Amino acid sequence: MEALNKLAELSYALDTFYFLMSGALVMWMAAGFAMLEAGLVRAKNTTEILTKNVVLFAIACIMYMLCGYNIMYPAEAVNSVWPGLGFLLGDDHTAEAVLASEGGTYYSKMSDFFFQVVFVATAMSIVSGAVAERMKLWAFLFFAVVMTGFIYPIQGYWKWGDGFLNGLGFLDFAGSGVVHLCGATAAFAGVCLLGARKGKYGENGAIYPIPGCNMPLATLGTFILWLGWFGFNGGSELKLSDIGEANAVAMVFVNTNAAAAGGVVAALVAAQLMFGKADLSMTLNGALAGLVAITAEPLTPTPLVATAIGAIGGLIVVFAIVNIDKLKIDDPVGAISVHGVVGIWGLLAVCFTNPDATLTAQLIGIVTIFGFVFIASFITWYIIKVIMGIRVSEEEEYQGIDYSECGMEAYPEFTDSSKGQ
Amino acid sequence: MEALNKLAELSYALDTFYFLMSGALVMWMAAGFAMLEAGLVRAKNTTEILTKNVVLFAIACIMYMLCGYNIMYPAEAVNSVWPGLGFLLGDDHTAEAVLASEGGTYYSKMSDFFFQVVFVATAMSIVSGAVAERMKLWAFLFFAVVMTGFIYPIQGYWKWGDGFLNGLGFLDFAGSGVVHLCGATAAFAGVCLLGARKGKYGENGAIYPIPGCNMPLATLGTFILWLGWFGFNGGSELKLSDIGEANAVAMVFVNTNAAAAGGVVAALVAAQLMFGKADLSMTLNGALAGLVAITAEPLTPTPLVATAIGAIGGLIVVFAIVNIDKLKIDDPVGAISVHGVVGIWGLLAVCFTNPDATLTAQLIGIVTIFGFVFIASFITWYIIKVIMGIRVSEEEEYQGIDYSECGMEAYPEFTDSSKGQ
Amino acid sequence: MEALNKLAELSYALDTFYFLMSGALVMWMAAGFAMLEAGLVRAKNTTEILTKNVVLFAIACIMYMLCGYNIMYPAEAVNSVWPGLGFLLGDDHTAEAVLASEGGTYYSKMSDFFFQVVFVATAMSIVSGAVAERMKLWAFLFFAVVMTGFIYPIQGYWKWGDGFLNGLGFLDFAGSGVVHLCGATAAFAGVCLLGARKGKYGENGAIYPIPGCNMPLATLGTFILWLGWFGFNGGSELKLSDIGEANAVAMVFVNTNAAAAGGVVAALVAAQLMFGKADLSMTLNGALAGLVAITAEPLTPTPLVATAIGAIGGLIVVFAIVNIDKLKIDDPVGAISVHGVVGIWGLLAVCFTNPDATLTAQLIGIVTIFGFVFIASFITWYIIKVIMGIRVSEEEEYQGIDYSECGMEAYPEFTDSSKGQ
Repeated sequence: MEALNKLAELSYALDTFYFLMSGALVMWMAAGFAMLEAGLVRAKNTTEILTKNVVLFAIACIMYMLCGYNIMYPAEAVNSVWPGLGFLLGDDHTAEAVLASEGGTYYSKMSDFFFQVVFVATAMSIVSGAVAERMKLWAFLFFAVVMTGFIYPIQGYWKWGDGFLNGLGFLDFAGSGVVHLCGATAAFAGVCLLGARKGKYGENGAIYPIPGCNMPLATLGTFILWLGWFGFNGGSELKLSDIGEANAVAMVFVNTNAAAAGGVVAALVAAQLMFGKADLSMTLNGALAGLVAITAEPLTPTPLVATAIGAIGGLIVVFAIVNIDKLKIDDPVGAISVHGVVGIWGLLAVCFTNPDATLTAQLIGIVTIFGFVFIASFITWYIIKVIMGIRVSEEEEYQGIDYSECGMEAYPEFTDSSKGQ
Repeated sequence: MEALNKLAELSYALDTFYFLMSGALVMWMAAGFAMLEAGLVRAKNTTEILTKNVVLFAIACIMYMLCGYNIMYPAEAVNSVWPGLGFLLGDDHTAEAVLASEGGTYYSKMSDFFFQVVFVATAMSIVSGAVAERMKLWAFLFFAVVMTGFIYPIQGYWKWGDGFLNGLGFLDFAGSGVVHLCGATAAFAGVCLLGARKGKYGENGAIYPIPGCNMPLATLGTFILWLGWFGFNGGSELKLSDIGEANAVAMVFVNTNAAAAGGVVAALVAAQLMFGKADLSMTLNGALAGLVAITAEPLTPTPLVATAIGAIGGLIVVFAIVNIDKLKIDDPVGAISVHGVVGIWGLLAVCFTNPDATLTAQLIGIVTIFGFVFIASFITWYIIKVIMGIRVSEEEEYQGIDYSECGMEAYPEFTDSSKGQ
Repeated sequence: MEALNKLAELSYALDTFYFLMSGALVMWMAAGFAMLEAGLVRAKNTTEILTKNVVLFAIACIMYMLCGYNIMYPAEAVNSVWPGLGFLLGDDHTAEAVLASEGGTYYSKMSDFFFQVVFVATAMSIVSGAVAERMKLWAFLFFAVVMTGFIYPIQGYWKWGDGFLNGLGFLDFAGSGVVHLCGATAAFAGVCLLGARKGKYGENGAIYPIPGCNMPLATLGTFILWLGWFGFNGGSELKLSDIGEANAVAMVFVNTNAAAAGGVVAALVAAQLMFGKADLSMTLNGALAGLVAITAEPLTPTPLVATAIGAIGGLIVVFAIVNIDKLKIDDPVGAISVHGVVGIWGLLAVCFTNPDATLTAQLIGIVTIFGFVFIASFITWYIIKVIMGIRVSEEEEYQGIDYSECGMEAYPEFTDSSKGQ
């Protein structure tokens, strides 16, 4: 008996540690988005995108603590309008309760909150890239408050909080829908209201590429995201401490990596065939597409199938980026394609490998998340637009929003005013 | 009995692994300081600050191994002047001793050394930023030898080695004082002797901002530090392997993150109100201030209170940076404000949440660390100044110390001589 | 009995988690190589080197899955020409098999694959730096297919797959030979066929340094590699879950760090004495040399001896880089010196601390790996050269291969055509 109790304690410690390490890896994805986006915008808009990325992470942490977590996981709420605030007071499972639960309670509440809170920030990070180079900083931050405190948690509740989507059999292991499609949809709503960057689209359907200013940063960001995704997907197994669970977590790691690899190769080959060049930004988006695609179900595919799911994601993202550009939807970093279009692919791909999945449930999930998040985000963006405006002036956009919003240049010695346009 | 022994072995393995992962995260902070400082100096002084950061880490590892660790944790010393060198010979706990200790000995000696040694490097990294752009490289490195081998370990012994500060009830969970105030104080002593950069202060109290050359690097550095801090604070609980300890580690993770988030938002708002712009460098310093503030006590606050402690840190750092600049104390990266002023705030804030803390003990700790480190550092800097000088020539400073100290430029293709001033 | 079974399950989970965390750290080394190499080449060749690094990682993951893993670890192969594909189908140890093995089977198959696959990528990453700035992208990628699918696994099998080198008593803990010497040898074969960059060597033995364009990136890359190496060496102990193994892993962490520190200081001092300047690139190579040197045996040295082994590595690398340059072997990042010459030093150094090592066996291992990999790589490079050529045209090299291979610049706003040469 003493041995079994000590075992339960040790097991609880291991699962809690696994959550914390996974959460730390997901937190690191915030740096990945920041670097990716900073690399893909122009020098004159870099400080502002960095500021957005740092602050949105902070806002996500605060808003999710204050209300989002309780909306999404209301099991401990006092009632439907007054969420339980136990965790705000820092309570956690007592040893007695854990031992009495006989394995039902197997990790720290606080480690769960830590793991969940960094997911919210990921969803929000997706938005910042799509609206880059023309949105007002504070308009974006006010949207972040609503998104991380309410929009994300409500649709997250429907799936992971055991809401109606979960009841319908909608499957989304680590969030191709709940996180990536959600973030991309919010971004899409913003872009619709915001319009394209000046100089992006010309007459007669002309599209002018606006190259990113720092490709090593974009590459670094992609590698950071790739690493962080092991926490994102690996931690979403939610348990590690027996043989079956340990095998599952290992499988998730292998498949996550395999899908990213598949996405890289497919996007590279597609870009080479389409453009005649080994386009690095498409290759990076291929890696991310592979990762997004496998996120809805990284456990049931074999590694070979995971590679294929990622590779199809890599193909889709190249075509999506090209065609979304043709629709004059201006997404400087390709976030809508990577996280939205490929997120949908990932949710559908669950049907190929998980016998519990149904196409109907997946489609309902996709439509629900897209529909709700689009409408809620559009309204939120619209209200912000009416109150304070969401777009900087033409003059400010021409000069670069680093100057107007942040009052400082990102690379004051590397560029000069005439070059930075 | 067999089961209990195996349990003790497994528990030892988990706690050791927890130390090693925490230590690896803290080691990663060395990269964070390097990137932060490289981003905040001018291009012409970047190679030198990078060199300092790499070499100081190496010096810290060697000096702490040779003498610092034994000074700080003398329990196994042969006598007061001849420290025990067992760990230099690589001995560790035998299985017999661990099992006989009945839980008293629960992790590897070597993992403890690894976790401790990366803390020393952190303290030293704080110094390099404050003396940037004008100090001789080798003068700095000689100081690093004394600081990491002697000054840091002596004051560290007083608290963590169970010296008199610990006896007095001075509380410092993970080192707002022992690490951050210590590093900032050594930096302050250096800056006093070194003087300001040429062109920083003009006549009639004029202060000329010298913008950093690479804000994405500074942002990356901040994210790295934020991530590493989970190891810094999370590992300082020193144990993981039962329910209570696992809960404590999880709470430390949540509070560390919450304090950083609070610091970001508070510093951003303060900067917006004071300067009319969303100042990125202040926002980054706000994140670091939140982290420093919570380091003295990341366990007893609730997450909401931790956010507040961090937010107050974020406000303090903005005011400290502005006012220290007015005093013509030239600190290119704000290290004295972030780690020193906010470190003191963190030590005082312990009194609000930990009933074991007394204001008297905290004040004695602050005065002792500041007094000892300032005097010891000042003497050391002074001796180095007399022997070899600590400041490069005016001509070298004008040209950039990369050329004079390292013989190479950091960005040879991005800047030209006329632009880089 | 129930307790012992649960213990075995928990132990399996911990060891699996240790493998996965170690593997994630090694995966992160891919980012380290990418940043290091991007920092050390010229701006005009940066996009291409980044593309190579991302894609080679993906190719390594796919090829090692398809055939490399089974070649290297054929225990489960159907026969010598038809490898077992069980893991492709995602099978793993059943709980019954694990419990029946009484500790013999103690971690997930999939976690083993994950840990192994990132090693292959490391070996291949070494190649990309040495052939930078002049090789065709697709020629390199085709080589990567052969290297990661066949060349690396075959020599890896000889040691780690329990082949003849292992039988002879050749010792190589984490791969100074199997990974680093192997990668450097493949690079050397490529460089022999490829020739030096235009403008690198002049008449009468003149050598023109070609400075890297972004030293902060190179420094970041080094720090990333340093961090990743804790997974590389620390994971190679292959077990964590009892007191002796936990002590061993901790010792490996300490020694890995100590060797890097020794390499830094030795290379810095050597550079200062030889060139009169604190050369940052040599210092970074010193860190990597220390890490490569200790990789063959990070367990048996004491920390002090590990520091010395690393320091000797740091000295060797400075002399190797200078002298390899004199031989007109053009290696832009010093990869052949760091991973090849110092890899050999590491393999020989095993004899000083591990009583099981024999100089004969170590020499046979060195000659075998070098001989096989050189011949196999040379033939492969040669075939690629005949079929499609391995070198870009002079015009393309002059313009920068970013334009010809990838169709985009890495830093379009920081350089201009006239400056970028």
